[in-house]
Amino acid sequence: MEATNNARAYPPDLLPFLPLLYVVWEDGILTDAELLQLRERLERTPDISEDARRVLRHFLDPSHPPSADAVHDWRSMIEAAVQALPSLPASLTELAQLLAPHEHPRAIVAAVAAAATEIGLETDEAVRAVVRRPEVQSDDRPAVRHEFDPEALCNASFGDQLEVRERTLALVRAESFAGAPEHNTSAYREWVFERIVELGVRGFGRLGYPKDVGGDGDQRAFMTAFETIALRDLSVVVKFGVQFGLFGGSIQHLGAANQTRTYLPQIGRAELPGCFAMTETGHGSNVRQIETVATYRPDDDTISVHTPSLSARKDYIGNAARHGRLATVFAQLRVAGRSVGVHAFLVPIRDEESNPLPGVTIEDCGQKMGLNGVDNGRLSFDNVVIPRAGLLSRFGSIDESGQYASSIPSDGRRFFTMLSTLVGGRISVALAALSAAKSGLSIAVRYAERRKQFGPKGGPETPIMDYLTHQRRLLPLVATAYALHFSLHALADDFVEADDDEARESVELLASGFKCYSSDNTTHTLQTARECCGGQGYLWENRLAALKADTDIFTTFEGDNTVLYLQVSKSLLGAYGGQFAGMDLLGYVRHFGRIAATSLKEKNPIAARTTDADQLRSHDNIAAAMRYRVESLTRSAAARLKSRIDAGQDSFEAFVECQDHLVEMSSAHVEHELFDRFRSSVGKLPPDAQPTLDKLVSLFGLSALERERGWFLEQSYFEPPRAKAVRREVNALLGEIRPHSVALIEGFGIPDDLLRAPIAV
Amino acid sequence: MEATNNARAYPPDLLPFLPLLYVVWEDGILTDAELLQLRERLERTPDISEDARRVLRHFLDPSHPPSADAVHDWRSMIEAAVQALPSLPASLTELAQLLAPHEHPRAIVAAVAAAATEIGLETDEAVRAVVRRPEVQSDDRPAVRHEFDPEALCNASFGDQLEVRERTLALVRAESFAGAPEHNTSAYREWVFERIVELGVRGFGRLGYPKDVGGDGDQRAFMTAFETIALRDLSVVVKFGVQFGLFGGSIQHLGAANQTRTYLPQIGRAELPGCFAMTETGHGSNVRQIETVATYRPDDDTISVHTPSLSARKDYIGNAARHGRLATVFAQLRVAGRSVGVHAFLVPIRDEESNPLPGVTIEDCGQKMGLNGVDNGRLSFDNVVIPRAGLLSRFGSIDESGQYASSIPSDGRRFFTMLSTLVGGRISVALAALSAAKSGLSIAVRYAERRKQFGPKGGPETPIMDYLTHQRRLLPLVATAYALHFSLHALADDFVEADDDEARESVELLASGFKCYSSDNTTHTLQTARECCGGQGYLWENRLAALKADTDIFTTFEGDNTVLYLQVSKSLLGAYGGQFAGMDLLGYVRHFGRIAATSLKEKNPIAARTTDADQLRSHDNIAAAMRYRVESLTRSAAARLKSRIDAGQDSFEAFVECQDHLVEMSSAHVEHELFDRFRSSVGKLPPDAQPTLDKLVSLFGLSALERERGWFLEQSYFEPPRAKAVRREVNALLGEIRPHSVALIEGFGIPDDLLRAPIAV
Repeated sequence: MEATNNARAYPPDLLPFLPLLYVVWEDGILTDAELLQLRERLERTPDISEDARRVLRHFLDPSHPPSADAVHDWRSMIEAAVQALPSLPASLTELAQLLAPHEHPRAIVAAVAAAATEIGLETDEAVRAVVRRPEVQSDDRPAVRHEFDPEALCNASFGDQLEVRERTLALVRAESFAGAPEHNTSAYREWVFERIVELGVRGFGRLGYPKDVGGDGDQRAFMTAFETIALRDLSVVVKFGVQFGLFGGSIQHLGAANQTRTYLPQIGRAELPGCFAMTETGHGSNVRQIETVATYRPDDDTISVHTPSLSARKDYIGNAARHGRLATVFAQLRVAGRSVGVHAFLVPIRDEESNPLPGVTIEDCGQKMGLNGVDNGRLSFDNVVIPRAGLLSRFGSIDESGQYASSIPSDGRRFFTMLSTLVGGRISVALAALSAAKSGLSIAVRYAERRKQFGPKGGPETPIMDYLTHQRRLLPLVATAYALHFSLHALADDFVEADDDEARESVELLASGFKCYSSDNTTHTLQTARECCGGQGYLWENRLAALKADTDIFTTFEGDNTVLYLQVSKSLLGAYGGQFAGMDLLGYVRHFGRIAATSLKEKNPIAARTTDADQLRSHDNIAAAMRYRVESLTRSAAARLKSRIDAGQDSFEAFVECQDHLVEMSSAHVEHELFDRFRSSVGKLPPDAQPTLDKLVSLFGLSALERERGWFLEQSYFEPPRAKAVRREVNALLGEIRPHSVALIEGFGIPDDLLRAPIAV
Repeated sequence: MEATNNARAYPPDLLPFLPLLYVVWEDGILTDAELLQLRERLERTPDISEDARRVLRHFLDPSHPPSADAVHDWRSMIEAAVQALPSLPASLTELAQLLAPHEHPRAIVAAVAAAATEIGLETDEAVRAVVRRPEVQSDDRPAVRHEFDPEALCNASFGDQLEVRERTLALVRAESFAGAPEHNTSAYREWVFERIVELGVRGFGRLGYPKDVGGDGDQRAFMTAFETIALRDLSVVVKFGVQFGLFGGSIQHLGAANQTRTYLPQIGRAELPGCFAMTETGHGSNVRQIETVATYRPDDDTISVHTPSLSARKDYIGNAARHGRLATVFAQLRVAGRSVGVHAFLVPIRDEESNPLPGVTIEDCGQKMGLNGVDNGRLSFDNVVIPRAGLLSRFGSIDESGQYASSIPSDGRRFFTMLSTLVGGRISVALAALSAAKSGLSIAVRYAERRKQFGPKGGPETPIMDYLTHQRRLLPLVATAYALHFSLHALADDFVEADDDEARESVELLASGFKCYSSDNTTHTLQTARECCGGQGYLWENRLAALKADTDIFTTFEGDNTVLYLQVSKSLLGAYGGQFAGMDLLGYVRHFGRIAATSLKEKNPIAARTTDADQLRSHDNIAAAMRYRVESLTRSAAARLKSRIDAGQDSFEAFVECQDHLVEMSSAHVEHELFDRFRSSVGKLPPDAQPTLDKLVSLFGLSALERERGWFLEQSYFEPPRAKAVRREVNALLGEIRPHSVALIEGFGIPDDLLRAPIAV
C-alpha cells in the first residue's frame, strides 16, 4: 500500500474505513441521526485499535464535520492506492480490502461491508464517486453505423422532382444568394427583390405558366422550386410566391386568354412586379365581405375602384410597400346599380419611377416579426379609374353594351371558384413550412449528437441525443417531417393531375388541411429545435432565430389555421355523404341526419386490450384506430349539429358551439391521411432504408395515438393496459430509431452550407 | 305586391316560386339529380299556368343554369316585397305567400312549402339567405357589464408590494423609458445601459442589498421591481438582473463581509458594471464540470485565473460584450496542487476606458433572436493574476499561510450551496416571464373583443372572442396567469421569510419548478396570442413580436427547463421520504423502496363517475385529483427506479430510462402547488371579484385535468363519462367567464401606454 504524507497521521487500521467516510461526507446523504447510528455501528468493530476508534468517533460527529482538507486527503489516499490497478475495484468493500493493513483484514473489512450494504452504498457507483476514471475523448467514440444510404433515400423521396430540385439548389447555393443583409430592412428588401429578378431571368418564375405564353406549363415544378428556395431564405420564397404565384397566378387563373398573353410573360421575368390585393384591414378571413367597390361607368366604359372606409384598405399586401407596379385588386363589382359580388381587377399603382399613381395611397406596414425582406404595405384607392378591360374576366365579364355576364349564376359559387385559385399556394406554403422544419431538425439533431452534458458517475459526459427526454422531443418530429414530405408530394401530384370537380374538391380540402398541419408542425418543431439547442439556438448565426421568426406567420397567411380547419370540417360533413356541396351551411345541414345514422365499424375487442409489440406497431392497426377516430368524430359532430338545428337553433350558433369538436375532427382526418400516404410510400424507397422508415411510420402513428389516448380511452377503443403499452412502445421505437437519427436528417438532403454555421461546441 | 321592371316578364303565378329558386341556385346545394326531382315535383303543382310551368322548367334545367342577372333580379323582387314589412317572414312559405297573386294562393304555396320542407330549407336561415337585414352598427352593441372592479382586484393581488410596484411603474412609464432604438443593436445596448444607470441612481438596484452597505434590505421589493420593469422592456429587465441580481448578488451571497462593503454600494448605483461568468461554452447545465482554473500561487500570494481550452470560455455572459468592468468568474480552485472544487473570483476585465485588460479576451456573441439590448459576450483568461482577496470567501477561503479552509467539508455540498444563490433569480425570472404573458394576453383579449369576422347569415359580424375556439385558446391562459401570479407572489414571500434549511430547500424546489412552468407558459401564451391576433400580431408595432423573441430564452436561462424538472424530480423523490438530501443520486436510491411501498389514498368510486357540475367544479375535488396524480406518479417512479437499480443497472442509466416519467411527475407537482396557492388566494380578494375568480380557479384546474385525462382514464381514476363531462364543464365555464374577459385582463393592471399601440379595427 502506498500512502501520502498525511496518511501517516492516521492509525493503519483506520484506513479501510476511509472510502466509506469519504462517500458519506462528500455526498452528504446521511441525516444527523443516521450519522450517529453509523458511528455506533463502526465503533463496535472488533479488534480495532483505540486510536482508530477515536479517529472514527471524531470523523463521524455531526456537530463537527471534517475539514475540506481532510476529505480531500482521504480521496488522495484512495486514489493513490488504486493508481496501479488494471481496473477499478467493484465495491467499497474491495476498496477497504485494498487499504487494509495485513494484520487485521477480516473483521474490519466485514464491518465496512455491512455498513455499506445497510446504507445502500455497496455499488459500482459508490466506487466511481471516489475514484474518477479519465474521460474518454469524444473523437474516440465509434461513429454511428448507418444501415442505409441517406443520399439514395433523399433522391428516391423526390422522385421525378429531383432534377428541378437540384437546379434550384444550384442557384440558391450560388454566391449571389449568400450574405443577405437581414438586419437592415431597407437593404434586405432590395436584396430580396434582386433575387426575385434573378429567379425570373433564370426561368423559375414562369415554370407554372402555360406554354402558350412562354411558360413551362409545369405547376408541379414550380412547387418544388418553391419548396427548395425555402431552404435558403424565407423572405425570398415569400416574395417569389407573391410575384409569380399569387400575382401572376391571379391573372393566369382569373384572366381571359388575352389577359394572360399580355401580362404573364413580363410577370414571369419579374419585369412587371405586382401585388395580390385581396385582404382588407377589416376583412381577413371573411373575404366575401370585403368593402372595396369597383363600379362600372357606362358613360366612358371604365371602372372606378374605390376604398370607402379605413376598414376597406387593402392590408398586408406583399410587394406593395416598395416594388409593386400593378395590383390584382379584389372588389365588389357594381354594374348598373347592382352588386354582382367579388371580382378581381388590374389596377396600376406605381409609375416606372416607383411613384404612387394619382388616387393611390400606399402605406408601409413597417417592421415585422420576420420576413423583413418582403415589403408589405397598405393600398387605398380614391376613385381610381381603369379601363373595362381591367376586369379579370374568366368567370365574369362586362360586354361592350355594359351588360354583366358570367358562366356561374350564383355569386357565392363564383366567389368560391375564384378562391379555389389559392389551392396551389396552400400546397406551396405547406411545402415551404416543411422545408423550414427540416432545416431546424437538421440543426438540432446534429447539435444533440455533438453536445454532451452530464453522464454516469466517473464516466465521460453523454451526448444529449442519448437522453430519453431529448429523443421524445425530436424524433417524433423527424417522423412527422417524413410523413408530411411524402404526403405533400403526393398531394402536389394529385393537384396537377386533378381533371374533374370531385378530384379538385378533394385536393382543395387536403390542401387546406395539410397547410394547417404543416404550418402548426413547423411552429412547434422550430420552437422545440430552439429549446433543444439551448442558448446556442438563440444566437442569430445559428439560423433557428430567423427560421422561427420568418415562419411564424405561416399559421395565419393563406388562411388562418383555425378558420381553415373549420372550413375543412364543413367540407368533410358534406363529403361524408358522398357530396361536395360548396361552402354554405345550409347544404350540410341536410346531410347531418344521414351521417349521424351511419353505423361505425365494430370495435375490435382484442385490439382494445392488446399490448403485443408487433400488434401495436402494425401499420394496419394504427390506420384502423385513426380511421375509427375520424368516423366517430364526424358522426358525433353531425349528431350534435342536427340536434341543435332541429331544436330551432341558428346554424351559425350551432356551429360555434361545436367548434372545438369540428377542429378536432378535421385535424384527426388530416393526420389519418398523412399516415396513410406515409405508410404507402415506404415500399417505393430503397430497400436498405425500408426497415428504419417502417419504424418511423409506426413512430408517427403511435405518437399520435399516444397524444390522443384520452379520446381512445373515453371511447373504450383502448383499455388502460393498451394505452400504457402505446407509451412503452413509443419509447422502444425511439431507442431503435435513435442510432439512425443522423442518417435520417441527412435523408432530408439539405446541404451544409444552407444550414449556415453549424453549431459547434 | 310591388314588382321591379323585370318582374313584369314573369307570369304572376311564378312569383311564389322565386324565393325557392333563388336559394337553390345561390347556394348551389342540389345535385343535378336533385334539381331534376325538384323540377318534376314543382311541375306537378295543380292550377298553375302553362307559362309558369314553362318558366319553371327553364329555370330548373341543370344543363342551362340561369344567368347571374336573372338570379339577382329574383333577389331584388323578393327584397322589394318585404321592404315595408315590420319584421322578416319566418319561412320560405311565408315569403311565397307574400309574393303570391290573390287568385291562386293555396295550391302554389302548399307546393312551395312541401318542396322547401323536403330539401330542408323551411328555416329562418333560408329567409335570411335571401333578405339581408341591415347590420347593427358595432357601437350600438351594449357594453359588457363588469361585475367587479378590476383596479381593486389588481391592488389586492399585489398586497404590500403595491407601493414599490407603483413607484417602479411611474419610472418605467417616464419619457426616458420610451422609444427604445430596438432595431439598432449598438444604439439599443447603449440605451439599455443608460436605463440601468437611471434605475441604479434612483435606488432600484440596491433594493435587495443589506442595509449595512446602504441597501434597503428588501429582496422582496427587488423582485417586484423586476416583475414591473418587465412590463416595459425585457432587455432592460434582463440587464437589470445581470447587474444588480446576478453580479451584485454573487458578491452579496458568496462574498465575505468586507467584500460586500467594498463592492455593493458602487454596484447598486451601477457605477461598477459587472458580469456573472459561470456558464462555459462546453458546460451549460453541468456547471460542476467547468474547466476554468484558478490556481493559488503561494510565491506572491496571488491567484491565477486561466482558460485552458475553447470549451472553457465563459460564454453568453451578459454585460460582457460592451459594459462590464469586473466579473464574478466561477472556476475550479487549486490550492497546493489540489483541486477544492468550484469557487467564485472577482476578475477585472476592462479598464475605465472600456479596453479589455491584459490577458483578457472578450468576444461579442452578436445578434440574437431577442434581448438585443443586452450585450452578451465570451470571456477567456490567459493566466490573469488577481490578488488572493479576489476569492469570494464566504464559503471557502485561503489564509495568509496559503491554507484553504471551508465551513462546508464536501466539495459537492459547497457547490450546491453556492448554486442556491440562484434561487432568487429563478423566482424573478418566473415573475418577468409572467409579466410578458400578461402583456400578451392583454393585447390579444382586447383585440378579440374588437375584431369581428363572420356571423350569422344576414346578421352583423361576431367579435372573435365569442367563438368557442378563441375562448378555448385564450381564457385558460388568463386563468393560468392568475394562478401563477398568486403562487409566485406567495413563493417570493416564502423566499424572504425562509429561516431554516428545510424552508429554504422547499423554496428552492418550487423556485425551479415555477420557473419551468412560468417560462413554458409564457412561450405558449405568446405564441397563442400572436396567432389569435393574426397578421396584426406579426407587426412589430403591436409588441407581440418583441415579447415573443425576448422571452424565448426564458425556458433556457437560469436553468434549462428539462434539466430543472429532472432536478426537481430528484428532490421530490428525496422529499417524499421526508428528507432533502442534496443533489446526489446515491442519496435518493436509498429512499425508493420506502416510497414505492407507500400506499395511496383510496380512489373514490363515486368521484370517478360523477358528471355533476358542482362536483366537477369543486376545488376540493380538483385538488384531490391533482394530489392523487402527484402521489401516484411519484410512487411509480420510485418503483421503476428501484427495480432497475436492484437489477444492477447504473443509476444514471436508470434515471435516463425514466426521464419522461420524472418530468411528468415534476410538472404535475408544480401544477398541483399552483392550484392550491391559487384557490387559497381567492378568499383574500375583494368580494365582488370572488365569484368570477372562483370560476377561474375551476377553469385552471379542470383544463389541467382535461389535458391529462388520458392519464386519469388509464388509472381508472376517471371513468369515460366523467372525462367527457370534464370537457363539457370546461366549455360551460368558458361561456360564463367570457363576459368578464376584459375585466380580468384589466385586473392585470398594465397601463395602456405600456402595451404600446393597441391593435385597432
